[in-house]
Amino acid sequence: LKEHDERTFRETFLDWHANDQMQVIRELEKQERRLLYEWLTPAEFSDIFQEMDYEDQFFTVKEMNENYAAEMLNEVSADDAAAFFDKIPMEERKESLLKMMDPAEAAKVREILSYPRETAGAIMTKEYLEIFADQTVRDVMTFLRKTGQDVETIYYLYVVNGEGSLVGVVSLRDVIVNNENADIRDIMSTRVVSAEDDLDQEEVARMIKTYDLLAVPVVNKQKDLVGIVTVDDVMDVLEDEMTEDIGEISASKGSTDTNLTAVQAAKKRAPWIVLLMFLGLITANVIGQYEETLEAVVLLSVFIPLIMDSAGNTGTQSLAVVVRSLATGSFERKGISQMLKRELGTGVLMGLICAVVLIITVSIIYDSPMLAGIVAVSIFLTLSVAAFIGAVLPLIINKLHIDPAVASGPFITTLNDIIGLFIYFTIATSFIQHL
Amino acid sequence: LKEHDERTFRETFLDWHANDQMQVIRELEKQERRLLYEWLTPAEFSDIFQEMDYEDQFFTVKEMNENYAAEMLNEVSADDAAAFFDKIPMEERKESLLKMMDPAEAAKVREILSYPRETAGAIMTKEYLEIFADQTVRDVMTFLRKTGQDVETIYYLYVVNGEGSLVGVVSLRDVIVNNENADIRDIMSTRVVSAEDDLDQEEVARMIKTYDLLAVPVVNKQKDLVGIVTVDDVMDVLEDEMTEDIGEISASKGSTDTNLTAVQAAKKRAPWIVLLMFLGLITANVIGQYEETLEAVVLLSVFIPLIMDSAGNTGTQSLAVVVRSLATGSFERKGISQMLKRELGTGVLMGLICAVVLIITVSIIYDSPMLAGIVAVSIFLTLSVAAFIGAVLPLIINKLHIDPAVASGPFITTLNDIIGLFIYFTIATSFIQHL
Repeated sequence: LKEHDERTFRETFLDWHANDQMQVIRELEKQERRLLYEWLTPAEFSDIFQEMDYEDQFFTVKEMNENYAAEMLNEVSADDAAAFFDKIPMEERKESLLKMMDPAEAAKVREILSYPRETAGAIMTKEYLEIFADQTVRDVMTFLRKTGQDVETIYYLYVVNGEGSLVGVVSLRDVIVNNENADIRDIMSTRVVSAEDDLDQEEVARMIKTYDLLAVPVVNKQKDLVGIVTVDDVMDVLEDEMTEDIGEISASKGSTDTNLTAVQAAKKRAPWIVLLMFLGLITANVIGQYEETLEAVVLLSVFIPLIMDSAGNTGTQSLAVVVRSLATGSFERKGISQMLKRELGTGVLMGLICAVVLIITVSIIYDSPMLAGIVAVSIFLTLSVAAFIGAVLPLIINKLHIDPAVASGPFITTLNDIIGLFIYFTIATSFIQHL
Repeated sequence: LKEHDERTFRETFLDWHANDQMQVIRELEKQERRLLYEWLTPAEFSDIFQEMDYEDQFFTVKEMNENYAAEMLNEVSADDAAAFFDKIPMEERKESLLKMMDPAEAAKVREILSYPRETAGAIMTKEYLEIFADQTVRDVMTFLRKTGQDVETIYYLYVVNGEGSLVGVVSLRDVIVNNENADIRDIMSTRVVSAEDDLDQEEVARMIKTYDLLAVPVVNKQKDLVGIVTVDDVMDVLEDEMTEDIGEISASKGSTDTNLTAVQAAKKRAPWIVLLMFLGLITANVIGQYEETLEAVVLLSVFIPLIMDSAGNTGTQSLAVVVRSLATGSFERKGISQMLKRELGTGVLMGLICAVVLIITVSIIYDSPMLAGIVAVSIFLTLSVAAFIGAVLPLIINKLHIDPAVASGPFITTLNDIIGLFIYFTIATSFIQHL
């Protein structure tokens, strides 16, 4: 494809979507990439750069000469450039690149970098369009023809007053269907959905989703418009938050990245497994307390897995329900107490069902109604408690704003294991003379 | 607010966003809702209707007189109307409503309903704009001014030929920044990203996300444009798929809906718990096989939870990694064998770490290096296998296109429990004379 002349290459290559161009570049040899940096202008390369993941971005910037890199970063939209600089590992390289960039562009990047991570300010972009209420539709169309190519979206136009405060919004659709002489004032909507710059990115995503927007304006404490967050950025946020939720349920936080090697993945995951193993030693200790009971009736140990599995599974179900409710916001509408009551009710019902099933099966298999009774009552109590704990722990953790990882699935499972086994052995010890 | 006159109410209420209007309606009394159906036109109510969830939609349609409902449904965009009709429980009501609707609108709804669920065709909408390659920018702007208000998005204009086949796409941005006399032919992009009508909705979502689109055109086998899927619909799809993923990991499929009562939730969740309990009986049976070993050394039962927990947690981590990779598509880039090799490697490494930790702790706590050795070797083998199984099972299931719920977290956990306990007791039985 690119053995030969520059012109043919440019003609075919530049016709593709940036994401496809990026996929091709991943496959190239070092020599070929060199050629690419010569044949493509920094502006052309910037579109491809925005589609890359961080690792490829670092790699490419390292390979380019610094002038080319700085010019290219000028063309990258401010939010993507900030995301790149935020992750860049080399502090001096970062500063020297920012200094070589166009001062106006670099200032935008620095502003975005100044916000705390995962807030509206940190994910917003500066490439948006401001108009004024006293302009006419014709004025705006002329303005759009000139500047439309350089901004992130031209489909929402934000109306500001003389002080730069956000006073309204008008969609390009409204501009187009209205008369050319109409004043923006008369067609704009003054009830603007906007995000404060320190709002959590998940809230911003939910806002865009709830109101079916293509972008949401970001304002500072003085209600000045400082940037916008677009729907495509928000889709990435939603995906990240989802991955976090799954990490929470499975104690694999930060390790679902498939680019990791086995050693890197083990490094991230092993601490969880070791920590959970120590909790397992606590469970072992609970059983150890009842060694006498176990020695008397070894058959009791046969039901340890059943009690543990059922307790764990029921707790994980409740956890999943609560984590999803927190993420989709449906929980706020219902309120804590109703949610907990429901989970407790569900646990009691499932406990009853399982108890009935067990009393029949265990009586038949092990021919011991007493043993069956002990197992059944234990399961009933365990499931009732486990469903409640699976729901209440993440809620408490969420209220206290502690890192929710400590309420993750395996921790709740282990806690429920301990409670379940404690219930089981307490009951079994009380009735041991009847076995 | 609405005790008094119609005019004041309309003035304030209609200024709000439809989602906020919907929130208010949820709070109203029956008498007040009656008044609302009188004061708002069907077209005005249709915007609110689109923001409601299905239950509220059924409820409202049941309350309205049928004429008003049919007129309102005419104004609802075809995809939302189809989604409503798809879920409506009363078959006759559905038919009579569709017959009372405008025939053209009803035909659109019927077309969307004719596609299999969760495909591009089933979530697409019919309200899009078609233009022709030989039109000029001026022609298109005139066309937009007339029809722009009635379609789902005016920001992408799809170019079709005389036979209705999709030949290009032009963004409204391109239309605006180009000269009024330019031909669409010269500014359109002919490399259109499009979805076949039977494509899975998750693939459609990924397409929009990968290419940062606001909408993707849907074509049939003859490449005729039949509809579009917009980014806001795709955000809902992503959320649904995510909830499905979480359900898979936690065996709570279909029950994370917070609107369910305790009885409804128990009905959905209990079958899983009971089924898993029976698997727990199999685990019990594995232990039962080693009753002699256990009778000889009761202390062995103390480590049952530790083996089970570690096996389960490691498997769940691998499952989470694979489920996320499948969902984000990052897995396709890497290939199955590399993924499995990595998971196996991670398992072996974590097994080694845990074995070292255990050999020290168990030696100290239980003062038995032999017991510590048995537990450590068991953990090493168990974790190596568990990580592999947690990765390979969902992949096989995915390849075979079986319902992935059977590879859900608890099933993998139980399978790993059984394998882990089998390894543990086999090793323990072989070395029992040394204990």
